[in-house]
Amino acid sequence: MPRTWHNVSLTLADWGEDRLVATLTRDLPRSAEVLVGAGDDCAVIGRPRAARWQLLKTDVVVEGVHFLPEEDARRVGWKALCRAISDIAAMGGTPAQALITIAAPLKSPVERMKALYAGLRKAARKYSVSIVGGETSRSPGPLFINVALTGWVERQHCVLRSGGRPGDLLYVTGRLGGSLAGKHLDFQPRVEEARWLVSHFKPRAMMDLSDGLASDLPRLAAASQCGYTVEEARLPLNRGCTPVQAMSEGEDFELLFALPARSAAALERAWKKQFPRLPLTLIGHLIPKSEIRAAHSRHGYDHFAQR
Amino acid sequence: MPRTWHNVSLTLADWGEDRLVATLTRDLPRSAEVLVGAGDDCAVIGRPRAARWQLLKTDVVVEGVHFLPEEDARRVGWKALCRAISDIAAMGGTPAQALITIAAPLKSPVERMKALYAGLRKAARKYSVSIVGGETSRSPGPLFINVALTGWVERQHCVLRSGGRPGDLLYVTGRLGGSLAGKHLDFQPRVEEARWLVSHFKPRAMMDLSDGLASDLPRLAAASQCGYTVEEARLPLNRGCTPVQAMSEGEDFELLFALPARSAAALERAWKKQFPRLPLTLIGHLIPKSEIRAAHSRHGYDHFAQR
Repeated sequence: MPRTWHNVSLTLADWGEDRLVATLTRDLPRSAEVLVGAGDDCAVIGRPRAARWQLLKTDVVVEGVHFLPEEDARRVGWKALCRAISDIAAMGGTPAQALITIAAPLKSPVERMKALYAGLRKAARKYSVSIVGGETSRSPGPLFINVALTGWVERQHCVLRSGGRPGDLLYVTGRLGGSLAGKHLDFQPRVEEARWLVSHFKPRAMMDLSDGLASDLPRLAAASQCGYTVEEARLPLNRGCTPVQAMSEGEDFELLFALPARSAAALERAWKKQFPRLPLTLIGHLIPKSEIRAAHSRHGYDHFAQR
Repeated sequence: MPRTWHNVSLTLADWGEDRLVATLTRDLPRSAEVLVGAGDDCAVIGRPRAARWQLLKTDVVVEGVHFLPEEDARRVGWKALCRAISDIAAMGGTPAQALITIAAPLKSPVERMKALYAGLRKAARKYSVSIVGGETSRSPGPLFINVALTGWVERQHCVLRSGGRPGDLLYVTGRLGGSLAGKHLDFQPRVEEARWLVSHFKPRAMMDLSDGLASDLPRLAAASQCGYTVEEARLPLNRGCTPVQAMSEGEDFELLFALPARSAAALERAWKKQFPRLPLTLIGHLIPKSEIRAAHSRHGYDHFAQR
């Protein structure tokens, strides 16, 4: 039979996740109380003038993708819940109630499930989250843990990805890179830091670093209709990490935010007092969209590619 | 080596789902605003005296468990969302916002994902649900679709599983059995019916039939601290189904509820007017716990086993 090329079926591997999600979630039906739908760290629900808004997030960890079969299930449980908590923090919010779904092979030892829940409970206690639902299903494949998490944020403190403006300074908390060496199972979502930040300063845009700065910063910049420039030499590296690892390993779960330049000095002073053990690093700034090309040719390949 | 029996590791296959969930979710940390946690159809969140409470539910469908790989993805998407909608209905509530998580193999055709979302959108439109989040992940195994759903219910209309009393009559909506022949992909969650019911009558306990009457009724009875008796000859069977199929196939997604006997005649008259095409069937009643043994020996094996 002759080989033909029409009607080739595209697979998920041909598309990036961003393109897939953007396509699937385009023009979804939504009611008036949905203030922010799919596309930011969390959905935002409420009346526009209400004092508080509700935040909603769902997230999954999959055996063989987000953790290895031999991993300590307690740490996997911790990670599963803390990933979603980190997204609530990224909006300036406080986490509230979690619903857990586990799909597990029938041959899974009951002790492993208990260890998983021990990790979930530990994270729930530390971040004052109530686990209010625990569904289980059989899985003919790997272990899946899905977390759906609610939270809330005062209207005036809610920070989206889309509020950044040219000239805003870009900061990251903590140090980047090293997740593959184990940090991805033990990270601390920055709830306290984000709550302090939104109460005392006004970040214009914020998100958590889940896929790595090289993937996540372009998302924040695009949502804010800006370009960006980052000085690689400034990146706060975890011990033993290269800048490439720091930008692309992902799962740092640190905060990335954009702040008006006029607030920079006050923020840096206050941060050092408030969180003396957690670095806060100025890594670059947002630029007008019109300057993206110029910035790219000026900075060349030492800076990471502006898409 | 001699064969020893100590230290045998129990697996999920050795435990039922109910026992597993009960063990995992025992004594979970929860705040004061969690009115009902894991164990009912939905969690109930709010201040005790508030006019409205929020309902939260999560549910997963797994390829090879809840649907076959060759199934039309549109119907799978419909099913995934409607399962969770059915749980909101079972509390007397109205569904509101959904978060979708899909974990899919990289080789999945993009068209299949779009068809899945077409089914999700269709269900969302029909039941006025806003899809506010769409996460995707790679799966090294089967396709997983997790739905987290919020809803709300007026305080005075919220129905739990636990309010039934001895003597209450047991009703089911619709007809039972036949899910394996395809109905499990096309069922209609009984939102309108449940809303009408809680507004006009006062069911004392209610749930949706997801695992089949033979599994679900004992849960409602246990939550209400009652026994039950059911007359098999009364069961409303779908065409071609045996009573055993009707009781044990599961995925009927009809309502099962307990109502004070004094309301029965009025309910049956009003229901016929309101929903002339959907049967409502009296199948039995709740009995005191102390009579469980007597009921069992009196009715023998024609009635299904009281545990």
